[in-house]
Amino acid sequence: MNDNQDLTKRRTSIGAQRNPASQEAILQAATEILAERGPGSFSIEAVAKRAKAGKPTIYRWWPNKAALLLDAYHRQKNPNLHTDTGDLQRDLTWFLTELLAFWRRGGCGAIFRSVIAEAQTDQAACEALAAYLAERRKHLGAQIRAAQARENIGAEVNPELVAEMLSGFAWIRLLTNRLEIDEEEAGKVVKTILDGIRGRG
Amino acid sequence: MNDNQDLTKRRTSIGAQRNPASQEAILQAATEILAERGPGSFSIEAVAKRAKAGKPTIYRWWPNKAALLLDAYHRQKNPNLHTDTGDLQRDLTWFLTELLAFWRRGGCGAIFRSVIAEAQTDQAACEALAAYLAERRKHLGAQIRAAQARENIGAEVNPELVAEMLSGFAWIRLLTNRLEIDEEEAGKVVKTILDGIRGRG
Repeated sequence: MNDNQDLTKRRTSIGAQRNPASQEAILQAATEILAERGPGSFSIEAVAKRAKAGKPTIYRWWPNKAALLLDAYHRQKNPNLHTDTGDLQRDLTWFLTELLAFWRRGGCGAIFRSVIAEAQTDQAACEALAAYLAERRKHLGAQIRAAQARENIGAEVNPELVAEMLSGFAWIRLLTNRLEIDEEEAGKVVKTILDGIRGRG
Repeated sequence: MNDNQDLTKRRTSIGAQRNPASQEAILQAATEILAERGPGSFSIEAVAKRAKAGKPTIYRWWPNKAALLLDAYHRQKNPNLHTDTGDLQRDLTWFLTELLAFWRRGGCGAIFRSVIAEAQTDQAACEALAAYLAERRKHLGAQIRAAQARENIGAEVNPELVAEMLSGFAWIRLLTNRLEIDEEEAGKVVKTILDGIRGRG
């Protein structure tokens, strides 16, 4: 067996298993570099160097920069955005207010902004972002669906479309760096949507 | 008077005047390069070379890449997004459907995506984008305000906040490359918002 074959074999085996310690070291390095240098100067090369990992290893586990950035984003201390008080207006206002507050804190918003930026020039990154958004939409949609009967929301309402309207508002605020929102304004956005989907009479 | 002062004076004077022919050549070059190479490989250097202009000239008129991209975006054949049929549901559905169709056509959406991406790593670009959005919000907001009395929309409703909800939905579709929308879906989004802001009873 020559060295090349040996290497290929080892690589395939590592790729299939994902060594948790290396993975953690890579994500930790990515998070540190993001905090120190900002997303504009973030590179796989710098992550590889700091984590003492090979670039091929990183690319085997994260096919593109956006996928690695998304995982680093998930590692941030995420507040509980989804509450269930039995009052959808209150739960969604909480969601919107807390999401924007989370993005304002310690670079979390900066990481997500760079994921979105990355997705605009890289097709695979865009698909990763769309898949992430679909999952978020499902989660928030389920919360709205659960309240559908209880809060007189019409059966024809598509909860995922409603969830996307709320996310779109959060994104446009993030992307134009206007994350300051008070509960009153957040409440108005949510109320507009909820009054729109609640049955009348 | 030393050379430096002279240069400063000349620069101020050229900057204030903006030579229309050079300006046009630069925007034309930017548009061609965007169409040929895509926004990912777009650079001021390439624009300067093609337009036979100096990089300092370009930077004097457009302080950053995003400002130049925004102007190139404006040069695209923009459909009339703002109609006034006297029926706000119809006008806003038209706005949303046509905006997404415009973005689907011939790279217009790609240019705007690159403006947004650029704004995520460059503070000045972000301010240019926020200013552009504020202007759009005002325009769409005025359309909603005009219908406020006629269509029983409460006086407490902030038309610009409503406009931003609609733009946010359009942006999230653009940024995740999901621009296909039919009139029914667009109509549902608009109806949710309008039912939400119309008075009841």
